This record gives sequence, structure tokens and C-alpha cells, in this order.
Amino acid sequence: MKVGVIQSRIVVGDFDGNSSRLVDGYTEAVAQGAEIVVAPEDAIAGYCEGDQRLYPSFLVRHDAAFDTLCRAVGDVPLVVGITEKNSGAGKPLRNSAVFIENGKVLHRQSKTNLATDTVFNDYRWYEPNAEPVAIFAFRGMTCAMLVCQDLWETYDAAHGEHYFRRNPVSELKGKGVDLILVPNASPYYFGKGRERYEMVRAAQATIGGAVLYANYAGGHDELVFDGRSFIMNAKGRVVGAAKAFAHDEVLVGELDGPAVDYPFEDGVTDLGEALIVGLRDYVEKSGVKSVILGLSGGIDSALCAALAVRALGPSRVIGIRMPSQYSSQGSLDDADMLAKNLRIRCDTVPIKDIYQSVASPLERTIGFGTPSYAGDVTEENVQARARGLIVMAYANKYGAMGIATGNKSEFSVGYATLYGDMCGGYALIKDVYKMDVYALSEWINKDGEIIPRNSIEKPPSAELRPDQKDTDSLPDYPVLDAILKGLVENFEGRDELVRQGFDPAVVEKVIAMTDRAEFKRRQAPPGPIVSSEGLAWLNRQYPITTKFRP
Amino acid sequence: MKVGVIQSRIVVGDFDGNSSRLVDGYTEAVAQGAEIVVAPEDAIAGYCEGDQRLYPSFLVRHDAAFDTLCRAVGDVPLVVGITEKNSGAGKPLRNSAVFIENGKVLHRQSKTNLATDTVFNDYRWYEPNAEPVAIFAFRGMTCAMLVCQDLWETYDAAHGEHYFRRNPVSELKGKGVDLILVPNASPYYFGKGRERYEMVRAAQATIGGAVLYANYAGGHDELVFDGRSFIMNAKGRVVGAAKAFAHDEVLVGELDGPAVDYPFEDGVTDLGEALIVGLRDYVEKSGVKSVILGLSGGIDSALCAALAVRALGPSRVIGIRMPSQYSSQGSLDDADMLAKNLRIRCDTVPIKDIYQSVASPLERTIGFGTPSYAGDVTEENVQARARGLIVMAYANKYGAMGIATGNKSEFSVGYATLYGDMCGGYALIKDVYKMDVYALSEWINKDGEIIPRNSIEKPPSAELRPDQKDTDSLPDYPVLDAILKGLVENFEGRDELVRQGFDPAVVEKVIAMTDRAEFKRRQAPPGPIVSSEGLAWLNRQYPITTKFRP
Repeated sequence: MKVGVIQSRIVVGDFDGNSSRLVDGYTEAVAQGAEIVVAPEDAIAGYCEGDQRLYPSFLVRHDAAFDTLCRAVGDVPLVVGITEKNSGAGKPLRNSAVFIENGKVLHRQSKTNLATDTVFNDYRWYEPNAEPVAIFAFRGMTCAMLVCQDLWETYDAAHGEHYFRRNPVSELKGKGVDLILVPNASPYYFGKGRERYEMVRAAQATIGGAVLYANYAGGHDELVFDGRSFIMNAKGRVVGAAKAFAHDEVLVGELDGPAVDYPFEDGVTDLGEALIVGLRDYVEKSGVKSVILGLSGGIDSALCAALAVRALGPSRVIGIRMPSQYSSQGSLDDADMLAKNLRIRCDTVPIKDIYQSVASPLERTIGFGTPSYAGDVTEENVQARARGLIVMAYANKYGAMGIATGNKSEFSVGYATLYGDMCGGYALIKDVYKMDVYALSEWINKDGEIIPRNSIEKPPSAELRPDQKDTDSLPDYPVLDAILKGLVENFEGRDELVRQGFDPAVVEKVIAMTDRAEFKRRQAPPGPIVSSEGLAWLNRQYPITTKFRP
Repeated sequence: MKVGVIQSRIVVGDFDGNSSRLVDGYTEAVAQGAEIVVAPEDAIAGYCEGDQRLYPSFLVRHDAAFDTLCRAVGDVPLVVGITEKNSGAGKPLRNSAVFIENGKVLHRQSKTNLATDTVFNDYRWYEPNAEPVAIFAFRGMTCAMLVCQDLWETYDAAHGEHYFRRNPVSELKGKGVDLILVPNASPYYFGKGRERYEMVRAAQATIGGAVLYANYAGGHDELVFDGRSFIMNAKGRVVGAAKAFAHDEVLVGELDGPAVDYPFEDGVTDLGEALIVGLRDYVEKSGVKSVILGLSGGIDSALCAALAVRALGPSRVIGIRMPSQYSSQGSLDDADMLAKNLRIRCDTVPIKDIYQSVASPLERTIGFGTPSYAGDVTEENVQARARGLIVMAYANKYGAMGIATGNKSEFSVGYATLYGDMCGGYALIKDVYKMDVYALSEWINKDGEIIPRNSIEKPPSAELRPDQKDTDSLPDYPVLDAILKGLVENFEGRDELVRQGFDPAVVEKVIAMTDRAEFKRRQAPPGPIVSSEGLAWLNRQYPITTKFRP
């Protein structure tokens, strides 16, 4: 038996466009011989529509587009996720999978376990399913539909966690299910490909039957969906797999066919691709023409520029060198070399005169820059903010978007200037630790030097005062990153981290800096989430003022 | 019978401090003759602790402070909200009320209907109660504990909405309940005082019995809790009421005593107090010494300065006049007059030289400020950002916090410059429409002119280009505000608004501007939520890129 899966691009709120692309995908899958086709979760609206769901016209337009989709479905059934009105008590909507045949919805299954982790907040709008998961017959086979998270409980349970009272997977055990039809909206984070495979494999082993797993691909705001939709047969073998990050893929596989490779890649290539896709789709959806970024000669801005060129091509990326009195000639040369390697426009706008024009009146009012100055951040921040001002002037003049180049290590501890180097429409590497910045830079350079070797090898410095080094203020990056991974991603506090062997004083300093920097992160630009716990909006929900230090 | 209610200050993560203040409140209530005492929801941790709940040390420290509290409770019982471990399947925690007597927890009731509206996201951490709400005996009376939202379902149902499957209020109907014990964390928004009273009255009429309603008071980050804890007897009469916004109040009332006034005030005074309390508590909790803001001579910055002086006193508020070539002498004079009326320091830092220092190099690279210039926002934004840079230099030098002075009308449609006038640690009036800015200014002036009459009466202008008026870009504020209230607070889209009589072209423009400005709001400073639907973090959960326009 041939079966089909549609790996949709994620386009939020594009009811008609999504419906039309689903019709195309369905038609193609049928043409290739598929006898049943599965599409992603909430596939008419695009899943990430947030409170837009609360406007009355949302369902009206959604349902009109859904009707169009239904009319295109013939005797090969389509299983697709939709948002639908909840006719009973509780929240106004349901997140459901529907089974359509010959233009009619024959079966519906609303989601039981609503996602509430990372950026998800489904209980805000959706009433969960309170009934047993339905099973139904299709051409002599027994089928069940599970929406995304409903398939994941097995995996969480395997890790000793029980996030939900219900476990739809175990509820289906022993029911003789032949086909498990799974619409998903499952975003990327580092290592997610393998995790997803293992989770599906475990669920398949419990339930039995074949799994048709349909996911989104592409970026939406801070999320990047990695696709990797696949078909696993009743023996647990992958017999069809869509490419990572590729959207509008139609996958048709023979359940009894030969095993194929699942796209396990979950290393630095995957991480790089996620960033590139995230930026490209955000730029495209925002309608900006190009991107602008300051090139300091350091590794962070160099990596951002290189990723931007991969995403958009050199003609849509502009670099600006903005030297101050503390910028080294080496840094200027490194930035120049980078721009040449990337073949991007690179302007030079010194900030010395701007700095002086700020310093003069402020010397009188607040003692700015006077000889008593010894390490105050005020003077450093004015330099960073003068640069932010230049980047934004470019962005305004060209209808372009600034890229903020700070990494996750810096954003965590607040080693960044608000309205300065934190300026921009997209913080491309805000969820990438410094050590991963190094790894990605080597990946960029694997076929020849793009990022100058000197940018990679020199000690990191903000160059905002004489002979400044990052390590004046921060632990060495390998140590900092290891502590932050525990603190931010694994919810390990002081005691757990000290138990792992980190210096208590360093741990306490990092936790204090991270807590104090929450006010900066609240005003940080959005950026692609590529870890299991990012610093993005809705992802880390953390108070600004709190007396509890973990 | 005398009963007591503790109206706690909200201090997140201050386990020991909260426990100690609860002991003080309990002791005082008992000394005044209370025979039972009720305290707020999640009162050890402070309710707004977000993902801090996920650190292992959270519960350890919470429980230690809770044990201390329990030991202080004698034969007068204390009912208090806590976070506790969920020992069964599902989410890791429960949000519960406990009934403590002689150091022991005798009854516990976890919350049934977890809040998911506005900024709340309780399903992220808490497993809801799935059992019937317990009733229990205390000195011959029948008691029930309902945590906050569990009391509100009646009210929602009255509005034709059914947000939850369960209705704990109707479940308690006819059960002969004498005492309804209600720990709350119920934040202010405009009109909330009356709404809360009416909701409690309806619930009391359904269940019967007396209601002991304990709420928080004070600001936490973007929330302002208005207190107004009260005691309603079995006849539905208020026999005790705590003051609005006053924290650490202990309220003891005789259930058979005379009726007292409930603090119904829900007009502009209430709104002004909420803003003042929000700012004061945020400043105090952030540990900043003072606040800084630009004084343009316009009404928004004048109101912010006046509110800041009410919150912090004149010695902790600094104003800065930052004239450009487009600033009128009238505006400079108005700002000067305001500062004199408020007795605050007012510095003057012209931005002309900064502007010129930016213009010179950028003329060459991007044609900045060249004669072809005709209405481009680039040049306007550089002025706003030069001012932001000055404000932030003051903030850095003095360990102070900038106040962003944009109002809700501006933040909604994006009539504000990111990193310019949107700079600051707290956007004091970001949830206040322009028309309410006028009302608040009259309230400030009610005992004599503080805000210069001219600032109130002149046509609003950003003064970023010659003869600029807000109405060049925006509808008149009465119209704009009315459309925004429908769009943002009532989830009314184009069709609903046009049906109400607004010009379709104006409605479409406002919706388009509001949607396009989401990327700015994501980077806006936090600010106090004072409406039923603010623009704050977690409050309006809206995609940046979406093709759906409501």
C-alpha cells in the first residue's frame, strides 16, 4: 500500500494559500499512487496564530478555506489538522485532526494533550479531548489519528516525566491499530531529528501499525520547523522520509517497500541550516529587502554575515565597519577581509565624531568622559549605541532589517548593550552559545576560508575600552557555556551545578548575571530558537524582579 | 463570628519574607479576634514566579518557608495558597489552598480552573484538580476553599462565555456551605474593582454562605494587584473591605456586623494610583535609585513625570530637555514650567550636534539628509534615537532607569521610534490610551496646575519635522482610541468595527498599522497593565508575521 505525507511550509494566517498548497500536495500524492495522505497540524491557519484565533473572522475565513480543501478531496482520504469551534463547554476552540473522504469529514479527533512547554500555550484557546481516542475502519484497516503531542507521551514517560494525565499512545495499545495518522507542528531544536525518530519508534512499538508523520518545514518568527516528515511501517522501518527544512515536499512511500535513510543529521550542519532557514523565511515574511549588520572584525558578526549571505545571497547583505578609538587595525582588516570573502558591500562609518558630540554636552551635565572615568559602562554603552543608531539609519533608509549579532552566552549574562549591539529586527544567533559559534564558523569555512582565521582565533573583545577582553568580565567561554546549559536548558540551580564540579563563586556569579539581565532579554529582538530552551519570547518565562535565585 | 483576611504585598520568590509577613498578618488578625484567617494564592512564592518553579531548589525553599508558617499557626486556622508537588500523573505541581490548624495541614484543595487568559499560563506548571471540590467541617460550619479563578466561572457564564468545563461555584450550590475561603492573585485593570465585587456577589448568591476574599496588593513587573480584599456575609453584605493598592493590610470583620463601603472607585483616580504603585514597586524591586525621562513639552512626558514624582518624590526624578531644530520655543518653555511645578532637576542637552555628527558620514554612504529628503523617517528616527542615547547615558551614569513615555495609542499603531522614544526600563503609560492621558492629566491638575495647560491643549506633535502633527499620520485620537479598544481589547476585527459606524478606510489603516507594529512591541519596555487586554509580554500573544488581518 502506498501512503502519502505532505510536508507543508509554515505560513501563519494564510488560509487560502495554505488550503491551495494542501490541494496541490494532495493532488500530487494521489497522482503518485498514495491511497491515504496526511498533512500537518492546524494546517489551514498555520498553528502559530496566537491570539489571532480570538477574532470572529478567524474561524469564518478558516472554515471557508477548509471547505475549499474538502471539496478537492476524492476517494483517497486526506487527514489534516484544523482549528475548529468547540461546541461544548470550555475553551472556544479545538485543535483537531479530521479524516476527509469525497469532500466529507468522516472522522474527527481533537487533541488530548495540549502543548504547554517551550513557546506553546494551547490551553489558552483549545479545549482538550476528554474522550477515549477514537479508532475507525478504512478499507479493512484500523486507524487512529493522534495530533502531535498526543504521540509524545511515551517519550516523556521514558524520561521519568509525566507531563499529562492521559497517555494516548498506551491507550491505543492492543487495539489492533494498523495506521497511526499524525499531523504535527514540531519545531527544530538541536538534536530534535533523532529525538523525534526515537519517540515515534517507541510509540510505534507500543501501538503497532504504521505511522504517517507529517510536519511543517520553514521558519515562522522565532520557530524553525525542520520537516523530516516520515513514514514508518508496522515493523518499525522507515520507508519514506522527507528532507530536513524543505517545504512543500510531498512524500509517497510503499509500506512494504525497502527501508530508506532517515535524515538523522543532528550536528552543526543541522544547526547552521536552521539558522539560515529561520533568517530567510523571516526576511521573506517581513517583506524587508535586505539585511544590515555591523562588522566588528569579531567572530559573532562574521558568522552572522556569513549565514546571512547563505540565506539571502551577497546582494542583500550590507556590512558596516564602525571603528572607535579602541578598534584595532586588525579588527578593521578582519572585517574588510570577511566582506571581500563574502562579496558583500561594506561601508565604513567611524563613530568618533558621534561619540564626541555626545561627550561634549554630557561632560557638563553628568561628568561624562571626565578624567575621573575609570571603567564606568556609560562611555562604553554610548559607543555601542552610536553604532546601533547607524545600523538603524541604514535599515530605515533601505527598508532593510538590522541583524543583532549577540550570541546566547552574551544574551544570557547580559554582556550586550541594550539599544546598542542588541539593536535589530532579528537576533540571528541569540540561541547559539559561543562555543557553538566557533563550531559554526569552522563549518562555514569547511570548503575554504570565509571567516578570517584571525577572527576565530583572537581572544574575544568588545573593544569598548583599552585592551578590553571578554574574560575581564566573564568566565572562559567553555566554562560559561557549560554552566549556562545547565542553568537555562536543564533547570539546574546553584547546588546542582556545584555538585557537577563548577566553582561555587563562578556559578553564583553566572546565575546572578543571568537573573539581572532579564530586563535586557525582554527588549531583545526575536531570533530563531534552536535549543530545547531558548531565550525567546514565550520560551523562557521568567520574572524580571524576583528574590529567588535558583 | 470574627474572621480575618490578609492582603499581602506581592514579592516574588521571597519565600522567607513572605512567610514572615504572613505570620505577622496572622498574628495580628488573631489578636484582633479573628477565628479564621485567609491569605492570598501561592502566597509563599508570590504567584508570578514563572519558570522559576521548574528549578529543584524552588520547592525545597518554598516548603521550608511554608513549614515555618505552619508552625506559627495555632488553633485559629489559616487558609493560604501554596505551590505543591503533584504526586500523581500530569504536570509537576499543583496550585492549592491549604487549611492549617495547630501546625498541621488538615485540608487541601487544588485549583480546578487554571488561569490561561491575559498573562496567565498556569497549565505550564500545574495539574488541575480533577475531583469534586471538597467541603469540610470547622466548628460546626461547612467550609469550602476555592482558589481565585475557581470563583470566577459564574461571572464568565453570566457573560455567555464558558471558559472551563467545570464550574466549581455551581458544584457547591445546595451543599450548605457556610464559609467560602478564597485565596486570590487578582490583578488590577480598569474597572476591576466593581467587576470583582459583582462576580463575588453572584458566586455568593449561588453558593450561599460568607466569602473571605484575600488578594495581593502592589506591583510586580507588569502586573499591579489592587488588593480590595473583602468579607461578604451570608446575606451578601460587605462587612469588611481592605483599601485598594495598600499592602500588608490585615482586615478583621464581624460576619454579623454592620455593612461597610466596598471600595468601588474605578475611575481615573484608580487608574492613576495603579500607575503610581506599579512604577514605585518596580523601581523598588529593581534597585534603581531614580528615574530619568525626556521632557518634550508634550502631554505624555509631562504626565509620566508627574506620576513619577507622585511615586518616588521629586528628588528621584530627572527630566531632560533635548531640543532639535524642530522643537518650538513653546515646547521648551512648557517642559521648563513642568519641571518647576514638579520641583525636579531638569537638564538641557541639545541634540543638534549629535544629529549633525550622524548626518555628515551618512550623507556620503546612504544619502542621509540630502536635499532629496522629503518625509523619510530615517532623519526623524535619528533625532529620536539621539535622545534615547542621552537618556540611557544618564541612566547608566546614575544607576537610574529611563521611563519610556509612549502611550497605548502610539504603541498600538507603532507611532514611536524603537530605541528612540521607546527606550527605557519601564513604559509607564504603554497601556493608557491618549484620551485617558488627557483624563489623567486633568486628575493630576485637580488641585492646581502641575502639567502646563499648554501641554494639554496644543495639538499633539512629535516635532521631528517642520509643522508635524500626529494627525498627519493618525486619525484623531478619539476615533483612533475607540477603534483600538475594539481591536485590541474586545477582539473586534474590520467587519465588527465597520458595523459600529467607523470609516472602513480608517479601520483598515489602523488594523494594518497595529499588525505591522508587532515587531516594535516585542522590543518595547515592560510597563504596567491597566486594561483588560494590554500590550505587555504574555498579555497579547500575537504573531509578528501573519497574513491574517482580523
